[in-house]
Amino acid sequence: MSIVWFNGGFVEGRLSLDAADRGLTLGDGIFETLAVHGARAIWLDEHLTRMAVAADELGLGFDGAKIRAAVAAVLAQNKFTTASLRITLTRGVVEPRTLTGFGASPSLLVSLSEFNSALSQTITLAVSSIRRNETAPSSRLKTLSYIDNIAAAREVSARADDALMLNSAGHVACTTIGNLFLLKNDQLITPRADQGILSGITRAKLLSQAQEQVVTLADLHAADAVFRTNSLRLVTQITKLDNKPLGNRSLEHIRDFIAKRM
Amino acid sequence: MSIVWFNGGFVEGRLSLDAADRGLTLGDGIFETLAVHGARAIWLDEHLTRMAVAADELGLGFDGAKIRAAVAAVLAQNKFTTASLRITLTRGVVEPRTLTGFGASPSLLVSLSEFNSALSQTITLAVSSIRRNETAPSSRLKTLSYIDNIAAAREVSARADDALMLNSAGHVACTTIGNLFLLKNDQLITPRADQGILSGITRAKLLSQAQEQVVTLADLHAADAVFRTNSLRLVTQITKLDNKPLGNRSLEHIRDFIAKRM
Repeated sequence: MSIVWFNGGFVEGRLSLDAADRGLTLGDGIFETLAVHGARAIWLDEHLTRMAVAADELGLGFDGAKIRAAVAAVLAQNKFTTASLRITLTRGVVEPRTLTGFGASPSLLVSLSEFNSALSQTITLAVSSIRRNETAPSSRLKTLSYIDNIAAAREVSARADDALMLNSAGHVACTTIGNLFLLKNDQLITPRADQGILSGITRAKLLSQAQEQVVTLADLHAADAVFRTNSLRLVTQITKLDNKPLGNRSLEHIRDFIAKRM
Repeated sequence: MSIVWFNGGFVEGRLSLDAADRGLTLGDGIFETLAVHGARAIWLDEHLTRMAVAADELGLGFDGAKIRAAVAAVLAQNKFTTASLRITLTRGVVEPRTLTGFGASPSLLVSLSEFNSALSQTITLAVSSIRRNETAPSSRLKTLSYIDNIAAAREVSARADDALMLNSAGHVACTTIGNLFLLKNDQLITPRADQGILSGITRAKLLSQAQEQVVTLADLHAADAVFRTNSLRLVTQITKLDNKPLGNRSLEHIRDFIAKRM
């Protein structure tokens, strides 16, 4: 069971949503997913800052104080030891119904669900035929328009745990749910911000210790270790890419390496 | 006011939607928009065929008979002279919450709204910096993940009525809400299906009379006339591109040309 707050109060899992809400009709909104330990949402400030930047770029109404109050109300109800918190902001209803309308009443959905952090800490990847579009907001911002990631994950699901997505130039971008890092000769390397990647919060935490560059598939195959980052699972090692083993370093080595430098 | 049918019956404009419905949380669904004259939804068979193809590719549950029954129920309530009908199908709730899950109970939303077909029949375009991703399902299928189109329309809204989107190779694809055709020396030309375009129903109706090819911006500037097609507005002439006049033929000429060949 999840704890669900929608547009002003707690609801029992079902929303009373306007049929014309653009979040539903056109994937027109943004979201954040945070790890929760007890009453603490991890890196809440960073997530809200990213959300404010995305809202500004897309022209969505953003009220940080309102979101913080909703998050606090939900966290106060938390009975789970480890949980995931999702904050969803949509454009709401736009009248008249033009693509370019602002939306005077955005919808805010905050939900908290139990999350088992003991999920697998190593995964395999396969390259998807679906590329990241580095010119598109949907590749940089955490928007509700997620269908290409879903299709990429489905495409490889019979042969790998997650899809590796290249950008339109054929360079390494990210997976459907996280950023990528590689370790090579004691140097941490990650695809550059202009490579069609989500601006990840965990990625940002590691960035001062890493080199941003154009990354190729050959770089991944030559790495000492490759890992994925995201806010819920933090560091997940990639053990195989298209069924070929990647790197010879252990997950413990990766974690030690990161811990010593943060 | 709209007439709204959702998951089994008529509702008063607000849906009781599961907070985890993937249509809302991840733009995970598809839709069709049809013109309605009286009790008749124009090209309903063609729209449902396209929807079935998209549902199959994306792994969404599709029940054509159920959709037809809902559409018939909504059309029977129609009081508008001209209206637009929207059919929305989402993946519904997926348990466990993996990107790759099927969704055993898709959500079906059918809504009918008055539509003024006397909207402007000529528009201007400006080129967006956001490209169409010809490798992505979202560029070919009419999915709920529409945010890049919205961002493109917003980007040019101060200087044009709609955005012209190029694909990742820099060739002409389409606009945010329709396909493009050009008329040159009595030949109808349209971007090829592999150019990152939506597989439009009105486009399909004209295709037997047209040549599909790679189209450049220079081709548009050299055309005798350029027009946009979509199911609600049918043929809309493009009079300017980035503030430069396009073609020297009238909208009447375009319509005559098309009418003689269908």
